This record gives sequence, C-alpha cells and structure tokens, in this order.
Amino acid sequence: MLYFEDMQVGLKRSFGRYEVTREEVLEFARKYDAQPFHLSDEAAARTHFKRLAASGWHTCAMTMSMLVENMGMAPQASLGAAGVDELRWLKPVYPGDVLRVETEVLERRASQSRPEMGSVRNQTTVFNQNDEPVMRFIAIALVRRRPA
Amino acid sequence: MLYFEDMQVGLKRSFGRYEVTREEVLEFARKYDAQPFHLSDEAAARTHFKRLAASGWHTCAMTMSMLVENMGMAPQASLGAAGVDELRWLKPVYPGDVLRVETEVLERRASQSRPEMGSVRNQTTVFNQNDEPVMRFIAIALVRRRPA
Repeated sequence: MLYFEDMQVGLKRSFGRYEVTREEVLEFARKYDAQPFHLSDEAAARTHFKRLAASGWHTCAMTMSMLVENMGMAPQASLGAAGVDELRWLKPVYPGDVLRVETEVLERRASQSRPEMGSVRNQTTVFNQNDEPVMRFIAIALVRRRPA
Repeated sequence: MLYFEDMQVGLKRSFGRYEVTREEVLEFARKYDAQPFHLSDEAAARTHFKRLAASGWHTCAMTMSMLVENMGMAPQASLGAAGVDELRWLKPVYPGDVLRVETEVLERRASQSRPEMGSVRNQTTVFNQNDEPVMRFIAIALVRRRPA
C-alpha cells in the first residue's frame, strides 16, 4: 500500500492502455457532450478537429479508468481527490487512438487540520500512440498518512 | 448567436436541471471510476462520502450535458474549449440529487495569433437541490468574434 509518505516529489509512474473506439466516442457524446464535432465526421471536418473527435470530458473519464486500474495494481491509501488544476486539452483524441498515462508528483503537503492525511499534486499527462501529449492536468489527491 | 463580443465580463447565466439516478452513477463508475465509494453504499459508508456518491468526472459529464443543452437554447459561436482551471469537487453528489448550473464571465481576451477568435474564462458552479455548490471550475472557452 502506497501512503502519503511514499509519494516523494519527483516520483514518476507510467502505465495504462486504452483503445478509443468510435462506438464509445459516439455513446459518450450522445449522452453528455452532443456537440456536432463529437457526433459526426462531416460536422468535425468543418472545425479544427478535422474528423470525429472524443469529448474532452470523455478523455478525462478514460484517463480515470487507467488511473483506477493502476491503483488496483499499486494500491494507494487514497481518500479521493479535492480537484484538478490546469487541465488542458492539447490535441484531439480520435477513434482508433491508443492512450497511456504518465504521472509525476510535483508537490505534497501534510494536512494541518487533518493529521491523518495529506494532499499530493500529481501532474498527469495522457499520450496517444504517437507519443504526442493529448491532455495534461494536475490532480490534487488526498492520501492517508502511514499509520505510526 | 452569441459571439465573443457578447460575452461581457460579469455576464451571469443560470440554467439546467439534471436528475442524478443511482443507475447512471453505477454505470459511469463501473466503466470509468470503479472505486468502492462510487460502487456501493457499504463501501461509501466507511469514507467521508457516507453513502454511494457519483464520480467527480461523472459530475463534470452531467454538467457538460447541461452546458450543451443551454447552448442549444442560446447558441454560441463556440470553437470548443482549451481547458479548465481550478476544478474543485466541493461536496459529494448523490443519487436523487437534482443539479443546476450558474456561469459568470470572469475575463476575456482577443487572440493575438487568431484574429477571428478570442478566449473567455467562464466560472461554472454546479448546485444541488439545496442550493449547495457541489462543484466549481473555470472553463476556458474559445469563441468566434462577430463577423464584421
């Protein structure tokens, strides 16, 4: 189990593999982000996307599934997340893309008010199969401290 | 059609209604955020969530669906979004909650490199049925300028 004390600044991890399918891009978009460029190639062709591209929030969701899968393999004493800073959609994500994740601990801070936990700022970058970064954000994770 | 020029700093809008169902919370969590507190009341009872709560990314997705629905009613010359700053999950979102959105234009800037567009920083706050803010973020929207 990885505790707050194990999340040293500079710690890097690399993991995940997510194949983006056209069906899933359309399903997510119909439900949550029904903008034309997330629903059809024809509409996307008239934008900077050029062709059908995933909702940015769908990319967040797919990334979360890789993060959770990785937590299953390297369990963390996670207490959830307070939020996210500096989320940027850097490049479109297309059906057929294969995504992966790299994380790096930027900063960590013991909680003053809750001595049993601390917060960890984790830079999270998502790459496609051409090693191009498609999304980046800083997750503010809440992590339990190692029991004495 | 609302253009960049119409997005005055201070412009406030209030809209949306999203009923959070248990089925949808579970479906999203199984697919994208399979942490115990998003999958069962029993596991959630042992955390600060107390009972089954929606994934924070699911709250983002539900919020996007309200934003897109509102764009259908008040069309914007939208070119997508560059990203999001200061996303905070303020309170748990539970099955049975009814969400709504308030937005406020904080800042806007004409693009130097692309004279046909500008970026608008829109503070977006999601409330539950008790008017408690459950999530807040600043969306960085890219919007077309009004044709001359």
